[in-house]
Amino acid sequence: MNYLKNIDNFDNIALVLYQKDDLRLEQWPLEDSLKSNECLLQAHSCGICGTDLTLWKKGFVADFVVKNPYVLGHEPSAVVIAVGNDVTHLKPGDRVAVEPAIPCLECEFCRSGRYNLCPISNQQSHGLPPADGCLRRYYVHRADFCYKLPENVSLEEGAIVEALAVVVHACRRVNVGIGHNVVVCGAGPVGIMSALCAKAFGANKVLITDIDKSRLDLAKELGIDEVIHIDINNFNDKQVAQTIKEQMSSDALGADVTIECTGVESSVCLAIYATKSGGKVGIVGLGGNPRIPLSCAAMREVDLIGVCRIKDDYQLAIKLISSGKLNVKPLITHKFRIEEAIDAFNLLKSGQQGVLKVLIQY
Amino acid sequence: MNYLKNIDNFDNIALVLYQKDDLRLEQWPLEDSLKSNECLLQAHSCGICGTDLTLWKKGFVADFVVKNPYVLGHEPSAVVIAVGNDVTHLKPGDRVAVEPAIPCLECEFCRSGRYNLCPISNQQSHGLPPADGCLRRYYVHRADFCYKLPENVSLEEGAIVEALAVVVHACRRVNVGIGHNVVVCGAGPVGIMSALCAKAFGANKVLITDIDKSRLDLAKELGIDEVIHIDINNFNDKQVAQTIKEQMSSDALGADVTIECTGVESSVCLAIYATKSGGKVGIVGLGGNPRIPLSCAAMREVDLIGVCRIKDDYQLAIKLISSGKLNVKPLITHKFRIEEAIDAFNLLKSGQQGVLKVLIQY
Amino acid sequence: MNYLKNIDNFDNIALVLYQKDDLRLEQWPLEDSLKSNECLLQAHSCGICGTDLTLWKKGFVADFVVKNPYVLGHEPSAVVIAVGNDVTHLKPGDRVAVEPAIPCLECEFCRSGRYNLCPISNQQSHGLPPADGCLRRYYVHRADFCYKLPENVSLEEGAIVEALAVVVHACRRVNVGIGHNVVVCGAGPVGIMSALCAKAFGANKVLITDIDKSRLDLAKELGIDEVIHIDINNFNDKQVAQTIKEQMSSDALGADVTIECTGVESSVCLAIYATKSGGKVGIVGLGGNPRIPLSCAAMREVDLIGVCRIKDDYQLAIKLISSGKLNVKPLITHKFRIEEAIDAFNLLKSGQQGVLKVLIQY
Amino acid sequence: MNYLKNIDNFDNIALVLYQKDDLRLEQWPLEDSLKSNECLLQAHSCGICGTDLTLWKKGFVADFVVKNPYVLGHEPSAVVIAVGNDVTHLKPGDRVAVEPAIPCLECEFCRSGRYNLCPISNQQSHGLPPADGCLRRYYVHRADFCYKLPENVSLEEGAIVEALAVVVHACRRVNVGIGHNVVVCGAGPVGIMSALCAKAFGANKVLITDIDKSRLDLAKELGIDEVIHIDINNFNDKQVAQTIKEQMSSDALGADVTIECTGVESSVCLAIYATKSGGKVGIVGLGGNPRIPLSCAAMREVDLIGVCRIKDDYQLAIKLISSGKLNVKPLITHKFRIEEAIDAFNLLKSGQQGVLKVLIQY
Repeated sequence: MNYLKNIDNFDNIALVLYQKDDLRLEQWPLEDSLKSNECLLQAHSCGICGTDLTLWKKGFVADFVVKNPYVLGHEPSAVVIAVGNDVTHLKPGDRVAVEPAIPCLECEFCRSGRYNLCPISNQQSHGLPPADGCLRRYYVHRADFCYKLPENVSLEEGAIVEALAVVVHACRRVNVGIGHNVVVCGAGPVGIMSALCAKAFGANKVLITDIDKSRLDLAKELGIDEVIHIDINNFNDKQVAQTIKEQMSSDALGADVTIECTGVESSVCLAIYATKSGGKVGIVGLGGNPRIPLSCAAMREVDLIGVCRIKDDYQLAIKLISSGKLNVKPLITHKFRIEEAIDAFNLLKSGQQGVLKVLIQY
Repeated sequence: MNYLKNIDNFDNIALVLYQKDDLRLEQWPLEDSLKSNECLLQAHSCGICGTDLTLWKKGFVADFVVKNPYVLGHEPSAVVIAVGNDVTHLKPGDRVAVEPAIPCLECEFCRSGRYNLCPISNQQSHGLPPADGCLRRYYVHRADFCYKLPENVSLEEGAIVEALAVVVHACRRVNVGIGHNVVVCGAGPVGIMSALCAKAFGANKVLITDIDKSRLDLAKELGIDEVIHIDINNFNDKQVAQTIKEQMSSDALGADVTIECTGVESSVCLAIYATKSGGKVGIVGLGGNPRIPLSCAAMREVDLIGVCRIKDDYQLAIKLISSGKLNVKPLITHKFRIEEAIDAFNLLKSGQQGVLKVLIQY
Repeated sequence: MNYLKNIDNFDNIALVLYQKDDLRLEQWPLEDSLKSNECLLQAHSCGICGTDLTLWKKGFVADFVVKNPYVLGHEPSAVVIAVGNDVTHLKPGDRVAVEPAIPCLECEFCRSGRYNLCPISNQQSHGLPPADGCLRRYYVHRADFCYKLPENVSLEEGAIVEALAVVVHACRRVNVGIGHNVVVCGAGPVGIMSALCAKAFGANKVLITDIDKSRLDLAKELGIDEVIHIDINNFNDKQVAQTIKEQMSSDALGADVTIECTGVESSVCLAIYATKSGGKVGIVGLGGNPRIPLSCAAMREVDLIGVCRIKDDYQLAIKLISSGKLNVKPLITHKFRIEEAIDAFNLLKSGQQGVLKVLIQY
Repeated sequence: MNYLKNIDNFDNIALVLYQKDDLRLEQWPLEDSLKSNECLLQAHSCGICGTDLTLWKKGFVADFVVKNPYVLGHEPSAVVIAVGNDVTHLKPGDRVAVEPAIPCLECEFCRSGRYNLCPISNQQSHGLPPADGCLRRYYVHRADFCYKLPENVSLEEGAIVEALAVVVHACRRVNVGIGHNVVVCGAGPVGIMSALCAKAFGANKVLITDIDKSRLDLAKELGIDEVIHIDINNFNDKQVAQTIKEQMSSDALGADVTIECTGVESSVCLAIYATKSGGKVGIVGLGGNPRIPLSCAAMREVDLIGVCRIKDDYQLAIKLISSGKLNVKPLITHKFRIEEAIDAFNLLKSGQQGVLKVLIQY
């Protein structure tokens, strides 16, 4: 079934990464059939994340290496064009947020309720090589990983859902709950969203750290309770941790939960020291092999909790937006047309202040 | 009330640490009164642990510093001589295992069911400076931290209960369960007990590592399923992890749970690599600030779980011994009279093969 | 130490229950000494709850029987007059909410973090016979069960904390969480507070049922999402459950969590049918021995979760009020002076519409 | 692909239930194709369970009604004849235990790790109408729900795996753990297996009840610690509960966990009273709508936990057998050839003493 044969001037412009430093806009072929559990999508918006930058500048990220040209993009929103025969929860015209990784749903991990650990999903995660991503006008996706947006959620907000779902997953992994004091390390897009998400989960007080004062100003504007500026030229992890603990609560016992979003060694150390005995540190930022005070963590039963991608977190991420509990609009600071996509990547690379989420749109 | 005034030839010989390298046998005063919730004990046996050696050779361990002479010993069994007015669960003549740290039971940590994190208990943990320990003939203890031994458990086995309780706590923290594959790093007394305890908790297969082949031979004799010798001159953590995974199960997915008992950096790395995605590593060995593959752990949601002392684990430790599920007798390799206590410490310091638990007896 | 000897015209008027139907206002003796961990309190406000009414009209509730005259009242706020020698977290003049039951903190239940199950606390729960309650001007209480109110929480709100803490405990027991759909059965004070508390805990949609339309109107005004009127003359539990499920969500799978606050058999049945497979029903209302569809619950793994009193829930209850997440003020519909206390009880007995929480004040 | 066309004298004799009381042995057609994820099996043994009897005598069980003739049998072991193209974990000749219900693996319940609650699996559960069961010589099954038996587990033991997996699931749902005291109500096959399974899970002491003394004698022989005979002519639930509590432990606090396997009202009441405050009652036996002391359970936070079928429990059930932790052989009291299947059903119907598991064999 060729769904698009009747479309005049069929144009499937895509952002293709050929190899390190070689990003091109070009036409891309479309899957020519739709399985019964798939749907055909027309792209609307797609966020760019640090992983995309790394792939562009280094040609790999973690174990994912760019060997052949492939399409970038894993934070998409889209409109449904056509659905396979067995799809009942979507129909043409529906607006959706798209979960990029497709687990097998059959392995031990999937059956135990942890499909984010499925070894198959790595091989078919849209936007990680070699699986083509969502920065193309048309593409096919498993329908059960496309989530319909409510009327009051825009397609631009829909393009934030993936990043928010990662953050929701982190908050669930460390069990952020009502009344908790939460520290977030790092006020980039993921850190700020983590802080906002912790508030939405009912945290009592949320404190965020960063080395960039302008990001902390933004965090304050967005309603985060407390900020701590990290002076990297004059940094003592235990001292800063003590300051954080005193700023968090009168008993100065420390955070119930800390979400580490930088991956920087000194920040991981700070996270451990700032956390209350018996608390949890969620490891969201990835930064290789840090040297950390593991004995100090262990002797106080501060657990270091891994956070891997998304596991049924889209539904809640969408609810948080549609209910108004979490306003993602201020996070979208820049938008580019697909034809300007390379400019968008250059902007992000520049590290310019005031850049949070950059969307590429069709 | 002077309970001992009628005892002829009252002798309260104690093993006293004056300062680094200065261990003496001398008489020690006895508390002259008993509160309503306390009992007076007569020492029977007391194990020596690595912490005692460290205090002796360094004059401190973690934040505990020997400033004034104090009595060593925190793995005791004893016989009840007298009980306070409110004590109903013990009577003179009862044989008990004694839990050395006394939490306040009133703080936030105690009330939440985690008295092992009580900040007060550090200050009154028998055997850690400045709180006098149990290597003296007579001493007073809170009765609710003295646990009566069943008839079929000897006072020598009773002196193993403290170390076993630490291990029970570790197995509970990482949730060792029926059918699990478990790796234990390090085949010293704590490692071997952890492996035996994991078996008692229903583990399917338990594998233990060490650099000392004689310890692995002993582990095999004691019924541990698999052993891996670590060659420190030719060690590649990922390769050894792969070997472990293949030896553990045909799917080579790795351990459900790993219990790290060495505190050595390379062993912590191995522990992370050998653990299945979604699994847990219990941090029992303390070794400062290792450099570890934290991103690798996080991306696979391998959680690093702290293990701090004992929380209501004596009861189960005693049940494991009395039910025959865990035989601690082979772990007691040497016994010394209190008068020979310094010889016992020298034996342990020597690192001689075949030494596991050394008891000092009255 | 007689703390009050210098108070002119010392007046310790109390509401005393002599026996069934025999409620008197009279002077009551004051404890003449203060232990080191206690404080002396001056009453401000005290809520009346259904238990008080039952004690008055029946002379007993559950296993608590009025055998000798004793003082009623277990929902108090107060001002600290004096503190014992070891009390550091309170000082004279502090305004506090008072937790009425005092657990032993030493038994197996207390040590495991479940002091609400402590068998001792039943015997020393202020306001349940034979332990004198808080409807007297002055009384002594364990200081660690007195919780300081923040400046922005009034003493009237402080008198709601006990009831709110019970509801917080219920929400914790059934694990109400972000994004949940929650059904509450019964729109009395406990039901309405449960619904508000579920919202504060992050519930997505909360639906409440009652047989009294005026209560449902109030629930709507207070911001509860959905109401269902139960017509007892024409009630079919499965049909009403189906209506609830359809009103809750488009998939009509049912509530993630249901909180049953009536204790009425037909409502417990409804709660089971309205709950999603794998969900939980919290049993808050007490109503004896109902006939219930236990097989239907079991086959769908709908768990029936017991809810007993309070376990470290005051702190969060106070935070919910002080943060503005939960507004308890509209629940206080009537206030009476202590001298009018019997009128207050008669009002509650009358079942008049529009009566939610009634406070007695000093 | 007709896998069997070359088999001489193809014989697919099946036990077919036409309607209530109408059980016939006749030839049954074989699926004529194998999907890529399926395998073709040759039956070896199949247990009969109470559900089969009920279907035979009543024509329905729960919501499952016999409308058209269908094949009985849902406790099978089999040998693999052929596998689909994508099947890698099985090959012809492998001996397997077969999990009868096939969940969709895609719905909300399956994705959350609770496939036993999948609404689809009810419609395709082999042996429940209208889905043909396993009492036929040849049939096709999803390969990922066929579990290879280790060499030391016989095909007869393999036919017990389904029933054991149900019991494993129950022990997991109520979290039977090391050191627990466990009460099991009812000493039929499910009750006895529950008791043995609780022992294998590390229970300290297991007590079982029944009205039939011969069953209790057998339980004792099989190593269950304690038995209590229920005299139905002279039964007081609270008194018997007190006896149980005293027999379980010197503190008489009650069972940590109770597994109710009878479905009888008086036994559910007993289960609640015999359980320790804060403990759990697993509802395994199904018996409609009993009248139970729900307030008593709630006030002591005794939770009533539903137990529905199987969720990834085959692997552990097989490990329990192969490791020798649980000996199922004594439970197989009778074996019949398929040609004698109706005799087997009549034997079970007779209620004859000494009948536990009856196998039908090919």
